[in-house]
Amino acid sequence: MLKVGVIGAIGYVGAELIRILINHPKVKLEAISSTSYIGETISSIYKNFYGKVNLICTDMEEVIKKSDLVFAALPHGLSEEIAELTFKENKILIDLGADFRLSKEEDYKKWYGLNFLFKDLHKNSIYALPEFNRSKIKNYKIIANPGCYPTSIELGLMPALKNNFISVDNIICDSKSGATGAGRTLSLKSHYTEVNENLSAYAIGNHRHTPEIVECLSKISGKKVSITFTPHLLPINRGILSTIYCNLKKEICLEEIHKSYAEFYKNEPFINIMPLGETAQIKDVKYTNNCNISLHQDHNKNQLIIISVIDNMLKGAAGQAVQNMNILMDFEETDGLDFIAFSN
Amino acid sequence: MLKVGVIGAIGYVGAELIRILINHPKVKLEAISSTSYIGETISSIYKNFYGKVNLICTDMEEVIKKSDLVFAALPHGLSEEIAELTFKENKILIDLGADFRLSKEEDYKKWYGLNFLFKDLHKNSIYALPEFNRSKIKNYKIIANPGCYPTSIELGLMPALKNNFISVDNIICDSKSGATGAGRTLSLKSHYTEVNENLSAYAIGNHRHTPEIVECLSKISGKKVSITFTPHLLPINRGILSTIYCNLKKEICLEEIHKSYAEFYKNEPFINIMPLGETAQIKDVKYTNNCNISLHQDHNKNQLIIISVIDNMLKGAAGQAVQNMNILMDFEETDGLDFIAFSN
Amino acid sequence: MLKVGVIGAIGYVGAELIRILINHPKVKLEAISSTSYIGETISSIYKNFYGKVNLICTDMEEVIKKSDLVFAALPHGLSEEIAELTFKENKILIDLGADFRLSKEEDYKKWYGLNFLFKDLHKNSIYALPEFNRSKIKNYKIIANPGCYPTSIELGLMPALKNNFISVDNIICDSKSGATGAGRTLSLKSHYTEVNENLSAYAIGNHRHTPEIVECLSKISGKKVSITFTPHLLPINRGILSTIYCNLKKEICLEEIHKSYAEFYKNEPFINIMPLGETAQIKDVKYTNNCNISLHQDHNKNQLIIISVIDNMLKGAAGQAVQNMNILMDFEETDGLDFIAFSN
Amino acid sequence: MLKVGVIGAIGYVGAELIRILINHPKVKLEAISSTSYIGETISSIYKNFYGKVNLICTDMEEVIKKSDLVFAALPHGLSEEIAELTFKENKILIDLGADFRLSKEEDYKKWYGLNFLFKDLHKNSIYALPEFNRSKIKNYKIIANPGCYPTSIELGLMPALKNNFISVDNIICDSKSGATGAGRTLSLKSHYTEVNENLSAYAIGNHRHTPEIVECLSKISGKKVSITFTPHLLPINRGILSTIYCNLKKEICLEEIHKSYAEFYKNEPFINIMPLGETAQIKDVKYTNNCNISLHQDHNKNQLIIISVIDNMLKGAAGQAVQNMNILMDFEETDGLDFIAFSN
Repeated sequence: MLKVGVIGAIGYVGAELIRILINHPKVKLEAISSTSYIGETISSIYKNFYGKVNLICTDMEEVIKKSDLVFAALPHGLSEEIAELTFKENKILIDLGADFRLSKEEDYKKWYGLNFLFKDLHKNSIYALPEFNRSKIKNYKIIANPGCYPTSIELGLMPALKNNFISVDNIICDSKSGATGAGRTLSLKSHYTEVNENLSAYAIGNHRHTPEIVECLSKISGKKVSITFTPHLLPINRGILSTIYCNLKKEICLEEIHKSYAEFYKNEPFINIMPLGETAQIKDVKYTNNCNISLHQDHNKNQLIIISVIDNMLKGAAGQAVQNMNILMDFEETDGLDFIAFSN
Repeated sequence: MLKVGVIGAIGYVGAELIRILINHPKVKLEAISSTSYIGETISSIYKNFYGKVNLICTDMEEVIKKSDLVFAALPHGLSEEIAELTFKENKILIDLGADFRLSKEEDYKKWYGLNFLFKDLHKNSIYALPEFNRSKIKNYKIIANPGCYPTSIELGLMPALKNNFISVDNIICDSKSGATGAGRTLSLKSHYTEVNENLSAYAIGNHRHTPEIVECLSKISGKKVSITFTPHLLPINRGILSTIYCNLKKEICLEEIHKSYAEFYKNEPFINIMPLGETAQIKDVKYTNNCNISLHQDHNKNQLIIISVIDNMLKGAAGQAVQNMNILMDFEETDGLDFIAFSN
Repeated sequence: MLKVGVIGAIGYVGAELIRILINHPKVKLEAISSTSYIGETISSIYKNFYGKVNLICTDMEEVIKKSDLVFAALPHGLSEEIAELTFKENKILIDLGADFRLSKEEDYKKWYGLNFLFKDLHKNSIYALPEFNRSKIKNYKIIANPGCYPTSIELGLMPALKNNFISVDNIICDSKSGATGAGRTLSLKSHYTEVNENLSAYAIGNHRHTPEIVECLSKISGKKVSITFTPHLLPINRGILSTIYCNLKKEICLEEIHKSYAEFYKNEPFINIMPLGETAQIKDVKYTNNCNISLHQDHNKNQLIIISVIDNMLKGAAGQAVQNMNILMDFEETDGLDFIAFSN
Repeated sequence: MLKVGVIGAIGYVGAELIRILINHPKVKLEAISSTSYIGETISSIYKNFYGKVNLICTDMEEVIKKSDLVFAALPHGLSEEIAELTFKENKILIDLGADFRLSKEEDYKKWYGLNFLFKDLHKNSIYALPEFNRSKIKNYKIIANPGCYPTSIELGLMPALKNNFISVDNIICDSKSGATGAGRTLSLKSHYTEVNENLSAYAIGNHRHTPEIVECLSKISGKKVSITFTPHLLPINRGILSTIYCNLKKEICLEEIHKSYAEFYKNEPFINIMPLGETAQIKDVKYTNNCNISLHQDHNKNQLIIISVIDNMLKGAAGQAVQNMNILMDFEETDGLDFIAFSN
C-alpha cells in the first residue's frame, strides 16, 4: 500500500481527496493536515465522515514525513515550499494549487502577483493532464494538477486543435460552474441567499485560469492560441459546463469531426464523446471523474460548438489528482475512481 | 378603465398577465379563457390567487367580446385566427406567441413549419420592442410581443449596433434561462429532479428564436446580422442572462462604449446600464420589468462582452406586453410595472 | 406624508423595509442608517435598488432626527437605547428585534442573557400582532414587532385557543424556514453548499422564539400554554411553514373547526383560511404579507393538524412592521402591502 | 456470481438498483425489464450510464428466467403475480413495492383498495428491515422491502420502543422528503417550478405508509402503537428527515437514552447515533445507505425528539434491497453499499 497524505485537508478539495483515498484499493491515507484545525478529527468538521474516517489533523511536516506521496490542496503561493521539502526527500507532490501550472514566471507574476520562489523546482514539475501528456507524467516528482475550468476546456478542444480543424485566433469559452468551485471560505458571494435563484458572471476578461488555458492549448496545437473566457456561478453544488465556440477552418461536416473525436479518445477511460444529437449535461458526470463532450454545428455558418462537462471537484480537482497518482504509480488508472453518475 | 382580457390564462405567462392586470391602475380585467379549464376559477388552479382573484375561465369568443384589448398567451399557430377576429372588430390584440414575430412567411415556414393563414393581417402587425420602435407601435392593432431570449439579446446589442461599434458577422449569444421559460406543460425536461442540480444546453444551432433575433438585429443595424445562439436551462424559476460576444470594429475604449450605452438608454424607465466594473446578474431584475446591462472587454483583444439580464416572465413576456399596452393607450409606460427587485 | 427612517438598513430585513417604504403611498423614507456602511449608497450594496433608490447610509441619530416614525432592524440588545431616544422625543419606534417582545425580564435574562436596560420603557411598549390586539396598538409608541416563527404559529393557533378547542398542554410546532431567516451575516451554516440539497433542524428545545410563542399563546388562551418548538432550515430563500399538532379537547368535526377559523379571520385582509381539502404551501404566500392556514385531522384520533405559512421577511418581519405602522397612523391596513403572490 | 435481474428498471428506484448492482462484487446483473421501453438500451434513457451500462430492456418473463434473484421496483398491485412466478421456480424476489408489506389483507384493502391475489404467498413473505429482524430474513423467498418514510421512522424509534422509554399512544412523525420520492412519473406536483422554492405537506392524515409504520412499530414494541404521520415535499433531490416527537414514560435523562441507542445499534454497519449535541442532517447521509440518528430533549417537559435521516433512494429503497440480498446470500452486508457521503 502506498502511503499518502493530504495537506489542506479541510477545504472542499481536501475533503474530497480524503473521501477517494479512504476507498482507494492501493493506498493508505496516513496523515492529513490543516493549519486551522490541528488536533481536530476530520469527522468533527465534516459530519459525513462520522463513523467512517477518524483521522486527526496534524501539521504539514508530519504529513510529509509519513507519506511517500503528498497531495496539497492549498491557495496559490503556498505549494512551492512544500515542493522544496518533498523534492529534497525524493517524495512525490501532487499540487492542486496554481503554483506550478504556469511555466513562465512572467505569467505567474502577471496573473497571480508573485515570483517563483524556487525557480529550479519548476523545471522538475509537469502540468499533468493525463489525456494530453500521460506518458511524460511518470518522469516527474512535482505534479501540477490542472485547474477545473481549464480541464473542461482543454479536453473539449484537444482533438479539434490536434486535427487542425479550427482557427486558433478566436475561441470563445463560456463556462458555468457550481458553487463548490468557490470553496469553503465564507464570502457574501457564496452566501446561500445570494447564489440561490441567481446566475452571475465574474472575473470577465481577467480570470486567473486564462493563462493556464492559453498555455496548454498552445502546447496542444503548436500555435499561439487566443481565447476569451467567461466564468459564471451556477446555483448548484457540483459541475462545470463549458460551451465553446470555434471557427472551422474549412467546411467539414460534423460527422467527420465527431468521428475523429471518438477515435482520439477511444481508449480514454474517463472521456465520453456523446452520440451526435445528444447534448452533454452536468448531471451525467456529477460525482464522477468523467468528462462528457458533445459536438454541434451552428445552423448557418462554419462554426463548431463544443459542450464539455465535468465535476469540478473530481475531474476538475481531486479525481484528476488521484488519476495522476494512479499513472505515476502504475496503478490501474481507474483505481478508486470508477464512479457511475447517479440517475437523479 | 380599459377593458382587457387574457386568452390562454392558465399557462405561466397568462397567470403572470393576470397578476399584473389585476393591480394595474387603468385597466379592468374583464375575462380570461382557457380551453382546458372552462368553468373553473383561476384561484382553484393557481392558489396564489386565493382570496385575491376569482375570475372564471371562459372561452376565447367571450374574452374578445368583453374586451377592448386582448392579450393572447398561446403556443404558436393559434393567434392568427384570434387576430382575424379582433382586427375585424377594431380591437387590439397583443400576441405573446410567435405568429406575428417574423415578417417573412418563408422564415415562419422554415422555423415553425407553418404558413401564414391570413397574410394581410401581417402587414397590419408590428414587432413591438418599445426601446427600439416605441413611436410606431401606436399605429397598429396587432402587436407581436417579442420572445424572451430575443428581448435580452436585442436590448443588449442595440446601442452597439446603432453606433456601428461592432462587426455584424459573428455575434455569439450564449443565453441561460430559468425553468418558467419552458412553461407549465409537463415534460421530463421540466421534471424537478431532472432540472435541479443540473445545467443543460438545448436546441443548439436551431432554436426558433434565432430568426427573430436576426431579423430584429438586422433592422436595428441596417445590415444582415449573423448570430450564433445557444440557450441553456438553469435550475432557477425566473430570469435570463445572455452573455454576448462581439468583435469591435476598431479600437475603442470601454469607457466610450459605456457612455454611449448610458446615453442611448438614458430616458428608458426599464433599462439600467450598470456602472463599469459592475456585472449584471439575474437576481437584480427578477420579478421586475427591468433589463440590466453590463459591459466588459476581453483582456487581450478587441472584443466586447455584454451581459444582459431580464426576468423572462416580465420584460421577456407579460411585463413587456403590458408595457406595450401602456404605450398603445397613452398610459404612463410604467403603470402597473414599477416593481423593485427583492434584495433576496 | 409621514417621515420614516430605517435603522439597520443593510440587513435583509432592513433592505426589505426600504423596498416597501419606497413604494408606500403615504410615507416618505427620509433616512437610513448602518453602522458599517456610513456614507455608502444603498444601491451600491444592494444592486436591486440600482436606478430606484439612492439613499445614503447615515447614523442612527440622524435617522431619528429626520423621522417621525423609526423602524429598527437590529440584533437583540441594541433597541432599548434607541427606544429611550425616540420615546423622549415622542416619536414612534417599531422594533423588529427581540428587546421588547418578552414582558418579563426574567424570561429575557434566561433566553437572551441580558437584563432590561430601561425597565420603564417596557411598560410603554406592546407586542403587536394585529390580528390579536389591533385595537390596543395605537396607544403605544414602542412597538415590538413579533418574530417570524411566532407569527406563523400564533396566527395558526389563535382561533383554536380562543374557541377552547384544544388542550394547551402539549402543542407540537414543527417549523421550517427559508435561509433569509438567518440573515446576511456570513456563517458556514448559511454557506451555499451547506444549505443547498440539505435539510437540518437546529436549536432543538432551546430556540429563543420559544418564550415569545408561549407568552403570546398564553395571553390568547388565558392559560399557561406549553409547546414544543423545532425549527428547520430549508434550502429556499423565503418562507416559513409551521406544521402544528394539537390534541382536540373533545370530539369536534373538522368542518366546525374550519367554520370557526373562517369566521374568526373573516375581516382580516392578510389571512386566508384555505378550503377544506386544500393544503397551505409556501409558494402561495412568498413575497406577500399573507398568512395562509389549512386545517387537517389525523385519521385515527382526536388530533388537529394546522399548517400555517407566511413569508418570513414580510408577514414575519418587514411587512408586519409596515402593517403595524399603518394601524398606528390610521392608514389603510393594506397600504403598501397589497402584494399578490407570483404563480411561479 | 449471483445472477440477478431488475423488473421496473426505468423508474428512479430501478435505475438506482442498476447502478449499485453493476458495481457489486458478487453479482452479475443479467437482465432488466420495463413494459414501456422494451428493446431500448438503458443508457439511451439514463445518459449517466453512457459508456458504463449497455443493458437492453426486455420483459419480465425474461428477467425471471435469467435470474436467481429478482428485484421488482413497480407500483403496488403488480408484484404478487411476479412472486407467484418466482416462488414456483424457487427463486428469490425482493419486492420494493407495497404488495407484501402489510400482513393483514384488511389493511391492504383499506389503504390500497386491493385484495390479496395470492393469499398463500403472503405467509411465505417477510417485511425485511435488517436492523429489526435480520436473522429471520434468510428463511424467506419473498422479501418485502420497507418503504422510505417507514424506514426512517422505524429505525429512529426502535431502541426507544424496545427499551420501553416512551408512550406508544401519541407519537408524532413529521417527515420531509426529497423529490425523487415522487418518482419519474410526470405530474404538476413534480414540475420543477412548482417544487422549487416551495415546501408543501401532502396526504396529511392518510398517507399509505401509515399502516406499514404502525404494524412494524407495534411488532417492535409488542403493543399497539398509535402515530400521526405528516409527509412534506422538499425542494431537493434526495433524502428524508423525520422529526419524531414522543412522550417519555418517566423522567429519564438524555444521556441514558443516548447510551442505550448507541448500544442497541453498535454492530450495525449503516446506523450512526450522532454524539449528543450534534443534529443529524440530510447531507450527511445523501448518496449512502446510512441512517443517522440524533437525540434531543425538549426544554420544559418529558419529551424525546428524535431526528432520523436517510437517503430515500438508498436506505429507503434500492440500498436496503441490496442489503437484504446480501443478508439472504450470506455476502458481507456492506458489499456494494459502502458509500461515504460527499462533503458537499
